[in-house]
Amino acid sequence: MNLNRRDFGRLAGSAALAQALHAAEARAESQTIGWCIVGLGRISMDHFMPALKMGKTGKVVALVSGHRDKAEKQAEMYGVSTKAIYSYEEYDRIAANKEIDAVYIALPNSMHAEYTIRAAKAGKHVLCEKPMATSIADAKAMIEACKTAGKKLMIAYRCQYEPVNLKAIELCRSGAIGTLQAIESGNGFNIRQGEWRLNRKLAGGGPLMDVGVYSLNACRYLTGEEPHDIKANASTIDKDGRFNEVEENLGWTMKFPSGVIASCNTTYGASMNGYIRVHGSKGVVMLDPGFGYQGIHLKAELPNHQSVDMPEDAKDPEQFAVMADYFADCIRNNKEPKTDGEEGLRDTVLMSEIYKAAGLPGL
Amino acid sequence: MNLNRRDFGRLAGSAALAQALHAAEARAESQTIGWCIVGLGRISMDHFMPALKMGKTGKVVALVSGHRDKAEKQAEMYGVSTKAIYSYEEYDRIAANKEIDAVYIALPNSMHAEYTIRAAKAGKHVLCEKPMATSIADAKAMIEACKTAGKKLMIAYRCQYEPVNLKAIELCRSGAIGTLQAIESGNGFNIRQGEWRLNRKLAGGGPLMDVGVYSLNACRYLTGEEPHDIKANASTIDKDGRFNEVEENLGWTMKFPSGVIASCNTTYGASMNGYIRVHGSKGVVMLDPGFGYQGIHLKAELPNHQSVDMPEDAKDPEQFAVMADYFADCIRNNKEPKTDGEEGLRDTVLMSEIYKAAGLPGL
Repeated sequence: MNLNRRDFGRLAGSAALAQALHAAEARAESQTIGWCIVGLGRISMDHFMPALKMGKTGKVVALVSGHRDKAEKQAEMYGVSTKAIYSYEEYDRIAANKEIDAVYIALPNSMHAEYTIRAAKAGKHVLCEKPMATSIADAKAMIEACKTAGKKLMIAYRCQYEPVNLKAIELCRSGAIGTLQAIESGNGFNIRQGEWRLNRKLAGGGPLMDVGVYSLNACRYLTGEEPHDIKANASTIDKDGRFNEVEENLGWTMKFPSGVIASCNTTYGASMNGYIRVHGSKGVVMLDPGFGYQGIHLKAELPNHQSVDMPEDAKDPEQFAVMADYFADCIRNNKEPKTDGEEGLRDTVLMSEIYKAAGLPGL
Repeated sequence: MNLNRRDFGRLAGSAALAQALHAAEARAESQTIGWCIVGLGRISMDHFMPALKMGKTGKVVALVSGHRDKAEKQAEMYGVSTKAIYSYEEYDRIAANKEIDAVYIALPNSMHAEYTIRAAKAGKHVLCEKPMATSIADAKAMIEACKTAGKKLMIAYRCQYEPVNLKAIELCRSGAIGTLQAIESGNGFNIRQGEWRLNRKLAGGGPLMDVGVYSLNACRYLTGEEPHDIKANASTIDKDGRFNEVEENLGWTMKFPSGVIASCNTTYGASMNGYIRVHGSKGVVMLDPGFGYQGIHLKAELPNHQSVDMPEDAKDPEQFAVMADYFADCIRNNKEPKTDGEEGLRDTVLMSEIYKAAGLPGL
């Protein structure tokens, strides 16, 4: 229902106005978000697109891929018109596709900025995978482009929408474990030769960008504070050709304004089954594992011999569905996502500081 | 059986010589080590002295304490003559007590050096609690004094003699979890007001000296390497008077020659239930908890879905008995303890570097 100025004048002050507004709200609630998937890698095909089917708010309406065959196969699976398959060269044509409300950027890290900015210019909202960008300048440009276009920008910090992590946040910030003192976290995996993640031009950096960012982000959302005094070490142990361009291991310690100290490791040389431990004066909160697509498990020890044991209920790709539904709500109701561009920028700046503290180039 | 030169000449080249040597060895094996306990705090009364009863090699023969009443009670429990109770002023008189082979130094940290050096001068072997000393100079002086006196000096790094930790060392160093990459460890507790550990003059520092040293030492014995590139942060959160003289929290990251990176936390503001995680390219070794007087638990994930689950068999104070028996063997058979003064000095130097990296005075 669209109201023009004459309609509005006619309805003003009448019971009909209330009725019309109610109808508009209901429409907003039910508006299906049309998604254009940018990049058909594992995270899109195995997680995000299946999640849209599972969620209540969106559907795949367009695909951007360099592989037409793969895209056609996916288009058929999701009922996407072959006219809505775009190559990267044709990407700007998404502007003309009115079915597309939002894009999901799941490209190698260094391409996030360009494809976010072009999406904003095409008048689309953007959900961009982490890490937001491979440089501080890129992150800022992404924020600016979306702001100028009046479009939402959300960084896909999945864990900030995941119920077990949310429970951990509540426990850490409510005083349930007393005064927070110290955090340890590790996240990493043993990477295979040949992944784009090992190419500096595409990845922008090593495990810190890809998986260490989970630990960094979690330290921030569990404390609700911004760290400083970052100190770090980096190393490369395996001389098997994988780490010619990016670091293999990185460890860092940082301090929060309250005095909480966090010491974290990340690696591309070993599976760390990403976890975090938060120590308070009266208890401990452990997410172990804490960051996976499923199987997240919270254990907490609270005062008076109370404890919490909360395994994640959801199965993959439900975390992605929750995130997509959240972004749909932001779009429909004009809300700023809690993991907006500024949130991504903060991590980008901090990762740059971690690299510099380890004697590596900043971002 | 004592052999003089004439006896030796008579026995030389005979079957009797072999027999005499065998008898001497057997005697060495059965020689009971007489221990003088220096400092009657919890660790002596609740752990070390009961452990000597449990062990096979030693007995309490003397006590040094500032509290005569307490000492007399303990003397009665352990069948120690009241003549073998010394005040700190009388300490040097232990030289005249031939029943005393070794002293166990369980005093506030800053007193370790003086009482070790005086013991060496009195002709006694020394088992000194960790941390060895509150300054590098003291640690060196302790080594020098024992060397000059021709007496053994062992630092009571209990975990290096504890079977579950030994199994972890084997797994980490044998390649069972592939190439080591990264380590996280935390150790700390929420300290009570009024402990001598909060007095800088007695303790020399905060949780790093007392409990963080377990993480530091474990990183070293699990890798078999010496760290460098130490970076650290310290903080004090609780302004309740406990931390007027020592730090409350300390986090650090360090690098080993192989490239392994370790990131650790220690605190006097929260119970950390001391643990360590070692990540290798093919698996993980976790000691959680790893450093307690009992209840140590090893879990390891190895290649091909193999795993290790090894809870500690022993109950407190058995770890102390094992350690005392080990030192007895060193004394009887003139072996250098693996956790000798040099081992303690290395940790002292590293703790000094950690403090300096955190912007605090070194040791």
